[in-house]
Amino acid sequence: MIDQLIEKIEACQNPTVVGLDPRLSMIPEAIREEAYEKYGKTPEGAAEAFYLFNKEILDAVYDLIPAVKPQVAMYEMYGVPGLAAYIKTIAYAREKGLIVIGDIKRSDIASTAQAYADGHIGVAPVEGEKYEIYQEDFVTLNPYLGVESIEPYFKNMKDYNKGIFVLVKTSNPGSGQIQDLLAGPEDKPLYEIVGGLVEEWGSDFRGQYGYSDVGAVVGATHPEQGKRLREVLPHTFFLVPGYGAQGATAQDLRGCFDKEGRGAIVNSSRGIIAAWQKEKYASAFRADQWAQASRQAVLDMKEDLNSVL
Amino acid sequence: MIDQLIEKIEACQNPTVVGLDPRLSMIPEAIREEAYEKYGKTPEGAAEAFYLFNKEILDAVYDLIPAVKPQVAMYEMYGVPGLAAYIKTIAYAREKGLIVIGDIKRSDIASTAQAYADGHIGVAPVEGEKYEIYQEDFVTLNPYLGVESIEPYFKNMKDYNKGIFVLVKTSNPGSGQIQDLLAGPEDKPLYEIVGGLVEEWGSDFRGQYGYSDVGAVVGATHPEQGKRLREVLPHTFFLVPGYGAQGATAQDLRGCFDKEGRGAIVNSSRGIIAAWQKEKYASAFRADQWAQASRQAVLDMKEDLNSVL
Repeated sequence: MIDQLIEKIEACQNPTVVGLDPRLSMIPEAIREEAYEKYGKTPEGAAEAFYLFNKEILDAVYDLIPAVKPQVAMYEMYGVPGLAAYIKTIAYAREKGLIVIGDIKRSDIASTAQAYADGHIGVAPVEGEKYEIYQEDFVTLNPYLGVESIEPYFKNMKDYNKGIFVLVKTSNPGSGQIQDLLAGPEDKPLYEIVGGLVEEWGSDFRGQYGYSDVGAVVGATHPEQGKRLREVLPHTFFLVPGYGAQGATAQDLRGCFDKEGRGAIVNSSRGIIAAWQKEKYASAFRADQWAQASRQAVLDMKEDLNSVL
Repeated sequence: MIDQLIEKIEACQNPTVVGLDPRLSMIPEAIREEAYEKYGKTPEGAAEAFYLFNKEILDAVYDLIPAVKPQVAMYEMYGVPGLAAYIKTIAYAREKGLIVIGDIKRSDIASTAQAYADGHIGVAPVEGEKYEIYQEDFVTLNPYLGVESIEPYFKNMKDYNKGIFVLVKTSNPGSGQIQDLLAGPEDKPLYEIVGGLVEEWGSDFRGQYGYSDVGAVVGATHPEQGKRLREVLPHTFFLVPGYGAQGATAQDLRGCFDKEGRGAIVNSSRGIIAAWQKEKYASAFRADQWAQASRQAVLDMKEDLNSVL
């Protein structure tokens, strides 16, 4: 799957993944009203608003980007209808030819991790029948429980052509509290030790461009650390959050890419999906053109990233 | 909420939490057939079987135990109907007067963690309307992203009388790969550093028994480490997985309790909910008495735990 992601990035000339992390406060009134008319101001209404919003954004940007990254928390918050909207969003993105990275950050012991793996990137069995449930292409995972919490995904990755991104160094300002602790016999930062494990876990999953299906989440908000990780993890593809709304610039994340300008895909969520609320786009687009503001934000991000690559 | 948990443990004289982690292979045929008749061999059928199974177990054991711990992965695997069964299971357990620990092990940056916190232990807002979605009393959380991923839960804990258990030392055999790394200026095992943070995060949440609403997950499969953590985290209540099917004995987890026999609650999942499949109970109970086998397994576990307390 990593080869397909790399090829799609190159076809679009755009290492951008759009984060589909909707909140009601980002959704134009007309969309919300449409949803509430059907379902009331209820979790069902919120979920419908999310789906309608995502659909219009996907229609407006799908030809410019390789991938989307829905954040399951936003949907999970609204329970059953929320999760239904998450699944419908994934299906619609795939219909549009996009690669889908499910931002689920799951972690559990092996027998339980297997259930997540089967639901998200494999098949859920019912007495010999098999059901594809979520159908993400990649999912994000948390490494705190060690390789036993990651291995259960490996077979599905092979069988169904899927990938994972393991949290190595996250984008939040205080990620260092645990991740930067100097650890192990060589007193290396913990995120570097975890990165080394990720590189090792990926050794059976390398594709034709040298990168593996076992990627790493490396926040753009820590430029020096991203650069260092790029050097020591030559076969590990990076999913890079933190650009835009979280404060990182294109220059900050240059170091996450290799010399060929490959090796990373950069996420922006609010900066794109809520572009219509930003002064810059609000003055250029009419209220009913809000999805076009997202399209322009993608074009601007593409240009910005390409200026440093 | 921790005070209520402690009081309920003492009322039952039983520091046992029953893990509601159903798999189809554990569910008696009659229950499965009942579910498939309604919904076919589908995710809806699997979810219905989970709920019917949980309900019979809850009816059989609710008066013996303080709490249950549904593992969301098992339900999430089956998508929308699975999540509906998770929510219905929680509601039924609460109706029976049980405290519910949602084993979700979520982790994310602050703005996203807030969505999990509101959905699981707070309220999900829709234009001023507020909805309680999952209604667990406690949830488990993964600490890899640091305090910023935990803090978003604090306000809901105060406002809605809830608690959390943060992964410190997990029960899987290879948990040490990351958690046992010697780290920080004093070269302490990482789990001990995380434990220290958990103790600190709980300082504003202490109840009348000295324990706080910010608990720790400490696997029974690592007895020496559990004992050490009990000593250095005097105000942190432990959720202890690993008893029974994962191999830990009552003697192994004695060290997780304090001198008064408080300070921990021990989980058993398969050992109780799939008791009817074990030789010991299969010979004592008829096939249609399978839920009574679970009841007997709870009584046996209670006796076993009390023998070391």
